[in-house]
Amino acid sequence: MPEYYILFLFFLIFFSSSSHASVQDFCVADLKGPDGPAGYPCKSPANVTVSDFVFSGLAKGGNTTNIIQAAVTPAFVAQFPGVNGLGLSMARLDLAPGGVIPFHTHPGASEILVVTRGHITAGFVSSASTVYLETLKKGDVMVFPQGLLHFQVNAAKIHSSAFVSFSSASPGLQILDFALFANNLPSALVGQTTFLDLAQIKKLKGVLGGTG
Amino acid sequence: MPEYYILFLFFLIFFSSSSHASVQDFCVADLKGPDGPAGYPCKSPANVTVSDFVFSGLAKGGNTTNIIQAAVTPAFVAQFPGVNGLGLSMARLDLAPGGVIPFHTHPGASEILVVTRGHITAGFVSSASTVYLETLKKGDVMVFPQGLLHFQVNAAKIHSSAFVSFSSASPGLQILDFALFANNLPSALVGQTTFLDLAQIKKLKGVLGGTG
Amino acid sequence: MPEYYILFLFFLIFFSSSSHASVQDFCVADLKGPDGPAGYPCKSPANVTVSDFVFSGLAKGGNTTNIIQAAVTPAFVAQFPGVNGLGLSMARLDLAPGGVIPFHTHPGASEILVVTRGHITAGFVSSASTVYLETLKKGDVMVFPQGLLHFQVNAAKIHSSAFVSFSSASPGLQILDFALFANNLPSALVGQTTFLDLAQIKKLKGVLGGTG
Amino acid sequence: MPEYYILFLFFLIFFSSSSHASVQDFCVADLKGPDGPAGYPCKSPANVTVSDFVFSGLAKGGNTTNIIQAAVTPAFVAQFPGVNGLGLSMARLDLAPGGVIPFHTHPGASEILVVTRGHITAGFVSSASTVYLETLKKGDVMVFPQGLLHFQVNAAKIHSSAFVSFSSASPGLQILDFALFANNLPSALVGQTTFLDLAQIKKLKGVLGGTG
Amino acid sequence: MPEYYILFLFFLIFFSSSSHASVQDFCVADLKGPDGPAGYPCKSPANVTVSDFVFSGLAKGGNTTNIIQAAVTPAFVAQFPGVNGLGLSMARLDLAPGGVIPFHTHPGASEILVVTRGHITAGFVSSASTVYLETLKKGDVMVFPQGLLHFQVNAAKIHSSAFVSFSSASPGLQILDFALFANNLPSALVGQTTFLDLAQIKKLKGVLGGTG
Amino acid sequence: MPEYYILFLFFLIFFSSSSHASVQDFCVADLKGPDGPAGYPCKSPANVTVSDFVFSGLAKGGNTTNIIQAAVTPAFVAQFPGVNGLGLSMARLDLAPGGVIPFHTHPGASEILVVTRGHITAGFVSSASTVYLETLKKGDVMVFPQGLLHFQVNAAKIHSSAFVSFSSASPGLQILDFALFANNLPSALVGQTTFLDLAQIKKLKGVLGGTG
Repeated sequence: MPEYYILFLFFLIFFSSSSHASVQDFCVADLKGPDGPAGYPCKSPANVTVSDFVFSGLAKGGNTTNIIQAAVTPAFVAQFPGVNGLGLSMARLDLAPGGVIPFHTHPGASEILVVTRGHITAGFVSSASTVYLETLKKGDVMVFPQGLLHFQVNAAKIHSSAFVSFSSASPGLQILDFALFANNLPSALVGQTTFLDLAQIKKLKGVLGGTG
Repeated sequence: MPEYYILFLFFLIFFSSSSHASVQDFCVADLKGPDGPAGYPCKSPANVTVSDFVFSGLAKGGNTTNIIQAAVTPAFVAQFPGVNGLGLSMARLDLAPGGVIPFHTHPGASEILVVTRGHITAGFVSSASTVYLETLKKGDVMVFPQGLLHFQVNAAKIHSSAFVSFSSASPGLQILDFALFANNLPSALVGQTTFLDLAQIKKLKGVLGGTG
Repeated sequence: MPEYYILFLFFLIFFSSSSHASVQDFCVADLKGPDGPAGYPCKSPANVTVSDFVFSGLAKGGNTTNIIQAAVTPAFVAQFPGVNGLGLSMARLDLAPGGVIPFHTHPGASEILVVTRGHITAGFVSSASTVYLETLKKGDVMVFPQGLLHFQVNAAKIHSSAFVSFSSASPGLQILDFALFANNLPSALVGQTTFLDLAQIKKLKGVLGGTG
Repeated sequence: MPEYYILFLFFLIFFSSSSHASVQDFCVADLKGPDGPAGYPCKSPANVTVSDFVFSGLAKGGNTTNIIQAAVTPAFVAQFPGVNGLGLSMARLDLAPGGVIPFHTHPGASEILVVTRGHITAGFVSSASTVYLETLKKGDVMVFPQGLLHFQVNAAKIHSSAFVSFSSASPGLQILDFALFANNLPSALVGQTTFLDLAQIKKLKGVLGGTG
Repeated sequence: MPEYYILFLFFLIFFSSSSHASVQDFCVADLKGPDGPAGYPCKSPANVTVSDFVFSGLAKGGNTTNIIQAAVTPAFVAQFPGVNGLGLSMARLDLAPGGVIPFHTHPGASEILVVTRGHITAGFVSSASTVYLETLKKGDVMVFPQGLLHFQVNAAKIHSSAFVSFSSASPGLQILDFALFANNLPSALVGQTTFLDLAQIKKLKGVLGGTG
Repeated sequence: MPEYYILFLFFLIFFSSSSHASVQDFCVADLKGPDGPAGYPCKSPANVTVSDFVFSGLAKGGNTTNIIQAAVTPAFVAQFPGVNGLGLSMARLDLAPGGVIPFHTHPGASEILVVTRGHITAGFVSSASTVYLETLKKGDVMVFPQGLLHFQVNAAKIHSSAFVSFSSASPGLQILDFALFANNLPSALVGQTTFLDLAQIKKLKGVLGGTG
């Protein structure tokens, strides 16, 4: 049926051309472009391939040979441009025996965690200072509401790991100790605003490379 | 009263300069700029005219001499830059006798339809697989919730038409048949993921220009 | 193949039960429930029928035998519960010869208008006090950015009408004359805040039923 | 230092009382309350415990002894009230050898998938009908933009599994075959709006329990 | 403990590099870049200093030697790039004795006002034309819902002032008199759409520099 | 002109009834209703008065006779129901000489501060651990991006005060010391997740009434 076929091609051409132009199904980040409040500019759809939507960087855990014996491997928009504008992203947590992801917040996102190996003790604290604390087994899921202080600690004698997802392509990551001690905020001011003893502050500033 | 007048001019100058600079009443799309997650960059307000906010392309229906005997004429941001960032857009549907807008979704918007000529049978299906089906007369309005499969069929012996509005300047348009059959997705994979018979798949791939 | 069929039923049951419970495809307004910042509570999905998504109240124009010789017929959430939470709604404008929809704003939505009969002169004013003014023919579309003062005037010798859509299920409608003159705001205060003459204010208050 | 202590208690009381009242750190769903456009009403914070934020239902895969040899186990707001209002949720996919999650969409969310066992071939189709197809290994991540048709197929000879996260607490799940064939949408209308042959439609309606 | 220190540095490097890249804690406006629907592009974080987050322009009131004997000094994104993308901004109101901020709207934001000197009579009108009117003392706070007409009048015999905050970095400012009379909108059309007398319109057009 | 008047009344009745029903200009919180993800249910408009939109609780500073010699007086939705759903709120800071608002975050809002008396040293820390620190004079404005740790310290020898506004009606308030020390989070776990010495932790737990 050649006539049928040709008519369909007309239809095809019509719809394709219009939808091509007007569609914003996705907006893969052009990381060279300037960031904006809603994310990065979109890569031209013509240059987008499936590899923009696939990320292999979480297949292996990060190096845990460090003081916290733990690693956070992000798949945020800066590492994984396909999530730009889609309102989600991921990361992988690895905790060697004794490993700790210390108190931190994500200023712009809620987080959901699923344990994939070992046991993890996780907790968050609400504005009312209530503690929500649980030791999670493999397959358990826990959610951490946006912006609240939380932590994860390896509760197993083996390496534990987890995947975490965020409600933003760029959730941010503010680690409490780094915010307080790994910069040039004067020790006296840290003391005044945390009630910590000066000796304690100077000790942690020393360890974390802070000055002042 | 010249003094009065001069004082008012001061006032005029003050407010205008401040509001000029700080206002984002609208953001007419500069379609040459890179698209972003929230839309296109804004054309300079100095170059904006009323013609940016007016679109005449829906005055006539699209050509319905095609296999579906129907046409969708969009006034999305790509055709109508004035809607950029405003969270709405329009389109016009034309259905010749026997015409059909086949099953499709708008991934990023809800839709509201008003019949302007003839009769249209429209339906959508919910996640619970319930069908919401109605034959609409001239002046009837129907709403299609975001992202759900829906269709429109001419229910009159005459040409029917409708205007549809969307809750996004770039609602997207995914036509089911095109998604399944008008590309190189291997027929076996289509079969596996739709339970359609291979012969059926190959037939429609043939008609729609798909390969594999 | 009964075994095949039974297995599929298992599948059906599994998916249906899970999706039934967790889906919020739509949220038809229960208008008896208390309104909230995001809209009305949802009617139980079990009680939702296609009639919740269809509205016939725009098929006929409103009565234009009034001082403005025009009528606005809304299909907002209060009239059309199916749009609740979907971020859009509609209305119909009818203008007899000489009819006017006077200056007004929609505090919570942008508007898109399509002329379906006659000619309409429409305009809006930006924060920079620039006027965007056009006389629209049948089929012409014009967009009015959120919150800006705008108006529509019949530009034909015949009855003109239009459909308008909004980027909110509850766009609001603040008519300038009503805000200024149809209430008990003291005339002196109206004068002070509009620079209108007292006689003018009292005249319009008289006509519109205002006091003070 | 008792005085110091008492003063601090004043401070404690002041802040606690004010923050208790004004904080909405989280909004655990009261599933008995009526759903709304933004989610369920909040359970009283006094009754919230850590168990509201922890979900163990993804620890085991669903039963894959069914026609698709696969299972989707959701942790959406209906199963996991702690995610209410937080803009994310999870699910677990299990695919026996030969298992398939057939073509489906999530009308209200983007999805990110991480393979935890085996190999999965996943794909989505854009509005422009382009196919983005990849076979993923353990630890690989893939993102599926909001509202687009996508599928997952077991590409291993062993059981494969994955965790998926969504950018909504209630992402919805519309399975194509169920939408088309598992209800009372008349076969002729399905044919008209999908171009499928009537025999094909009737066959799948039969299998899926559809009528008409 | 040098080993300890070195390990911590590893940790420091790991986290910093990853978080540097993926964080969008803030997006200070690059005012030279093209504006977009969500705001301006971000200045490179490397060039951001504390001065981007501090604004001294509200320390002094604006010049009130003008016809309204009042001044509005904005700290919107155009004046204060640090608020870009953060969803808030400020302004300062100064009212000499007899001063008036005439009827106006902010098309894109709600406003909250706190009196810092004198007394201010403020009011807004709802869509239902109800007036909400109050004379505020120093320290009193009043909120004006988005997009509604409102005004502020000095109710003291001394200079009064206030700070106002907005729920947008770019709230807009549409002053009613300017919208109606300070442009080229034809007087007849103003009359038709406001019911004001022609003499009144021409008088105010004269004062405000309007034409037509 | 009685006829004219009567026609206008028709017009009045028509518009009022339609706009009454469909408008959601504001949504004053009914604090007895259950909170939801978007805020509280709306008080019936018939019962809303201007006092719902006015708050006098910030006219006086809070009591600073406490360990921090400072007070935060909130005008969040719980204290000021008029802001419900409007995306903003306020608070007042009072700092006696030596007063400190210690390190804290607002999990759900950005903050803008204006000094109204004295001098205030304010700072915030980014995810990249950079410190943004400034001593502000009367009238200076500073913005604190959402979710980041920040503090305010009196930098004058006199009482200092400030108004702060937030981009949410319910911004939350998580005070670091309270989150760490004013609850039953076991001291060992605090140590593990903050690297603070146990003695330091126990000392602050003692002062703040924490246990464990």
